[in-house]
Amino acid sequence: MAEPFGVDVPVVAAPMAGGPTTPGLIAAAQELGWPLMLKARRDGYDGRGNIIVREASEVEAAFATLGWPRRALFAEAFVEFERELASLVVRGLDGDVAHYPVVETRQDPTLHICREVLAPAELPDEIGAYAAAVARGAVEAVGGVGAFGVELFLLPDRQVCINELAPRPHNSAHYTIEACWSSQFDNHVRAVLGLPLGDAGLRAPAAAMVNLLGTHSGPPSDEDLAAGVAEPRAYVHLYGKAENRPGRKMGHVTGLGSTVAEALAIARSAASRIRV
Amino acid sequence: MAEPFGVDVPVVAAPMAGGPTTPGLIAAAQELGWPLMLKARRDGYDGRGNIIVREASEVEAAFATLGWPRRALFAEAFVEFERELASLVVRGLDGDVAHYPVVETRQDPTLHICREVLAPAELPDEIGAYAAAVARGAVEAVGGVGAFGVELFLLPDRQVCINELAPRPHNSAHYTIEACWSSQFDNHVRAVLGLPLGDAGLRAPAAAMVNLLGTHSGPPSDEDLAAGVAEPRAYVHLYGKAENRPGRKMGHVTGLGSTVAEALAIARSAASRIRV
Repeated sequence: MAEPFGVDVPVVAAPMAGGPTTPGLIAAAQELGWPLMLKARRDGYDGRGNIIVREASEVEAAFATLGWPRRALFAEAFVEFERELASLVVRGLDGDVAHYPVVETRQDPTLHICREVLAPAELPDEIGAYAAAVARGAVEAVGGVGAFGVELFLLPDRQVCINELAPRPHNSAHYTIEACWSSQFDNHVRAVLGLPLGDAGLRAPAAAMVNLLGTHSGPPSDEDLAAGVAEPRAYVHLYGKAENRPGRKMGHVTGLGSTVAEALAIARSAASRIRV
Repeated sequence: MAEPFGVDVPVVAAPMAGGPTTPGLIAAAQELGWPLMLKARRDGYDGRGNIIVREASEVEAAFATLGWPRRALFAEAFVEFERELASLVVRGLDGDVAHYPVVETRQDPTLHICREVLAPAELPDEIGAYAAAVARGAVEAVGGVGAFGVELFLLPDRQVCINELAPRPHNSAHYTIEACWSSQFDNHVRAVLGLPLGDAGLRAPAAAMVNLLGTHSGPPSDEDLAAGVAEPRAYVHLYGKAENRPGRKMGHVTGLGSTVAEALAIARSAASRIRV
């Protein structure tokens, strides 16, 4: 893509000529290189609805696994990233933007689901500013209104590319409830109602969020909950989901601190005591 | 009362011998002095359910106005206070206490309803500490569990006495939602569930709350709301009450600032734009 939104972002996706067919995907690989990330167009998230295709011989099995032709697919270059970043951008009806800090997200290597968020991401200033510009530019490019979670890859060569644009309040910005002057939820509502946007800046020096991922079938015990909320500067959120599945996001804990390391230690300490 | 809870508080109430009768009230006045504050035992708040009785000749009319004998009454000394203070105390099932800062409350002189809250109250340290001890002592004396709003009078001689003990989250502590590490609502729920209490300390240097009192019949206009929420560091709360009456609390605005004066200016600025 040639600077569709004012900042230079590497090309990582390609259409498959003639739809998602074996020759189409192989043609895409000639442009993007192997391995390819084959993804469902809809309902893909948290490592679901996508599969790595390492070579031509794996193509047909990958199509079958993802349910083609029942599900529409697309292919992306496989990106060897160094870190994952995210930034929540809220765009108002009038085009005004509230832009939350660039954060680092850390995924569970087995579950492919976000486990921790560090706010702000510890980055050289110029990379942070570039990542922020990419995130904001992506939301302005699609012209959306409301909250957008923008997931980014930081590459070893300090390039930044977009992994996902989620048109909604996003897990990577739940920390904003306690850590920012106006939360992502506050600003999402302001945006869609046409109200002036609130300040997306941090009101705490640092914050960290740890997701509470399901490990058994049931809510936390009273003892676990008491131990978790006893942690000072830790904020425990339980979503009250009807069904508890292993690896499912059942809640999260945000820690506030004077450094990211302190905030992370607080959030981890509280989260470690709450088995959901 | 002779130090029922460890701190010395002036006597301001007296039983009326033989119930609320003219001779009983006159006897109370001999102990407490005229004028007396005659109050309904139940459903009195915000200047409702009470009446000042200046002399013996006003007693019978005051009884009639307050609905005696249908309503039970009691008499208090009329207190010429200098300022009104308040402090929210949350007491847990285990007796642990979360104690919010002592604040100054300012009432509308006509409506007899709280208009502004300044947190923390600007007081000499020893008076602040004494007021805090009175508030905490009152809640411990009644042995309650949950949130208690304690309203205090600061007298010209620097004595502090208790005006009201409200066994619930209280208007004077709504500022805690944004200004404290754990809000009064958070701590009330923790208390009644037997969970460890959260930190009642301020996380902002200063806060101020301005009540939105009803002036007409209806919610604020979109334009008013937009103007109010445009104020940085101002947090607008609308209660969505079905009925809007002049002088009724329809919402509030909390301002955060680096000084109480700054926070108050912010809250007033936002509140002044929102007609409810």
